[in-house]
Amino acid sequence: MTTTPLTHIVGSGLIGASIGIGLSAEGWRVTISDADPETELLARSIGAGNAPDRTEPDLVIVATPPGVTPDVVSDALNTWPNAVVVDVTSVKGPIAEVAARSGQGHRYVGAHPMAGREVSGAMAAQGDLFRARPWVICAGTAADSAVALVRRVAEALQCDVVFMDALAHDRAVARVSHAPQAAASAVAAALGPLGEDDVALAGQGLRDVTRIAASHPSMWADIARLNKTALVETLDHIVSELDEVRHAEDIGTAMTALIERGRHEVARIPGKHGGAKRDWEAVTVIVPDSPGHLVRLLSDAAAVGVNVEDISIEHSPRQPVGLTTLWVLPQSESELVDALQKGGWVVAGS
Amino acid sequence: MTTTPLTHIVGSGLIGASIGIGLSAEGWRVTISDADPETELLARSIGAGNAPDRTEPDLVIVATPPGVTPDVVSDALNTWPNAVVVDVTSVKGPIAEVAARSGQGHRYVGAHPMAGREVSGAMAAQGDLFRARPWVICAGTAADSAVALVRRVAEALQCDVVFMDALAHDRAVARVSHAPQAAASAVAAALGPLGEDDVALAGQGLRDVTRIAASHPSMWADIARLNKTALVETLDHIVSELDEVRHAEDIGTAMTALIERGRHEVARIPGKHGGAKRDWEAVTVIVPDSPGHLVRLLSDAAAVGVNVEDISIEHSPRQPVGLTTLWVLPQSESELVDALQKGGWVVAGS
Repeated sequence: MTTTPLTHIVGSGLIGASIGIGLSAEGWRVTISDADPETELLARSIGAGNAPDRTEPDLVIVATPPGVTPDVVSDALNTWPNAVVVDVTSVKGPIAEVAARSGQGHRYVGAHPMAGREVSGAMAAQGDLFRARPWVICAGTAADSAVALVRRVAEALQCDVVFMDALAHDRAVARVSHAPQAAASAVAAALGPLGEDDVALAGQGLRDVTRIAASHPSMWADIARLNKTALVETLDHIVSELDEVRHAEDIGTAMTALIERGRHEVARIPGKHGGAKRDWEAVTVIVPDSPGHLVRLLSDAAAVGVNVEDISIEHSPRQPVGLTTLWVLPQSESELVDALQKGGWVVAGS
Repeated sequence: MTTTPLTHIVGSGLIGASIGIGLSAEGWRVTISDADPETELLARSIGAGNAPDRTEPDLVIVATPPGVTPDVVSDALNTWPNAVVVDVTSVKGPIAEVAARSGQGHRYVGAHPMAGREVSGAMAAQGDLFRARPWVICAGTAADSAVALVRRVAEALQCDVVFMDALAHDRAVARVSHAPQAAASAVAAALGPLGEDDVALAGQGLRDVTRIAASHPSMWADIARLNKTALVETLDHIVSELDEVRHAEDIGTAMTALIERGRHEVARIPGKHGGAKRDWEAVTVIVPDSPGHLVRLLSDAAAVGVNVEDISIEHSPRQPVGLTTLWVLPQSESELVDALQKGGWVVAGS
């Protein structure tokens, strides 16, 4: 491998600073800048990179808010006429267009490291933020050497590199991320007319559906504008599915048909290790809501060699116990139930 | 307390058999029947109750599929002219109407034990199924003594009794359960046009939103028909929220406004012990995907006295590690991060 490229990061928020920390930790020479001098200073102080100097970087990583990214990419291609420019925004088509219009498409690569955080800002940055997550590369008209450089970034951060066409990427994220956010928020918004006692009937299903409705709206305006076509197309699709039910002559048949269509598609969401989602079995146990009990529960599971694939915890309103569901492979279910019952657990369902 | 009432359960599926097992375990005299003789025999063999005899029961619990419940309740009120009749279907208004029309409303109580299972049938029954879950009682025009009898059932099964008006209940479950199911299924169905590589971009957000889309459609036809008015009203509301985005002049502003509306409402979903959902902090850790590691992680958390409020596990496609997020109270966050880092864990974000 050649020496690591001199890398300049524009934008030192959560994503930019995390990339800076991660690459610096791997020995890369990184400089970082931000439109806000305080943010820039903070990012430098946590090891996200050095102050920019006059040397032209080999690689410029644009990690600015989505709304300004097309302009910043365009500027970067002008400012550094020999550098490879990559941006890490979650919408790729409009930025690829800007790069193409500049006549510098061979030096531009689109990327989308798919890390999500509940928080934002450099203070939350971590070099490991992207580890084991997909890092999408949209090569477009970029030269092979430019693509290879971006791939080195993703590999240095231990990401799972995926190559996609920019428009296919945007269509995909509209359906797996942007429209689901809108739908979850709409389900939550529709709780509006309910009183507190009514909302208290919420079970784990509603909690799951609306978890991302608690997301902060920052950046969503930019994302929605940049990915408007695919987002509207997906929302149209979702509404047409709901129309099938709300306008049905027989709402029962329509509801069953919608659930069947959903079941068919949800089975395609990858679970572990890229495989299709497995049919896990649920073992539900009553767990006192205090430190240590969950450990004891999982210890009892591990003691018989059962791997817990997923856990969901349902806190009971007004009672000091919770229902904890362990999801395990079907062949482990009866063994787990036996072990837990021997361990004195109340298995509330399996 | 008086002697326990002679109780007859009509319908020995998951719910009926679980009630039978639970009440029998508390020493109640229970008989159970089912339209299907084999199912009835199975329920009896697992301790859900004895064969019915000629004695008139004090209490009849109707636990049949929702579609036939109105008729079965009506029949029960006719067959046993002195018994209190309660049904446990998830829609209450239409059944209360049938009871009122029979002139026997003083002997009819609506109930909705809010237990969810991934599976159905008597084989999955457990006496503890309802423990620590809400058990809604819709008293309607029932006599106080009839309501008290049903309350004894809920208390014997250690449920959290909630009194509600039948129509308010139906409106509430449309918004917290029935319409969210349709919305989750619609989001999943809208994955249809995506290829396998596109779907592989799915993150935890989509998995959460679509988890209930994997539900089996059985009973949903009946539920949708019985609760049609409230379900359609809620779907109209959800669609109008999505219309605000898809038909907006500025989709960015509209998306932000929708997310703000959703955030406001989702904060009203109770978390622990009936309180409003707390602002938990997320601590994300890289965990090898094999038995025992999760235990060690939670042991390290418990060792410093940190109570884990919730856990989410994200399996990484194609890699043998997972990202596990522990949700803790804000005041516990830094202590937990310190403890985990000292224990050798890679904290990927907090």
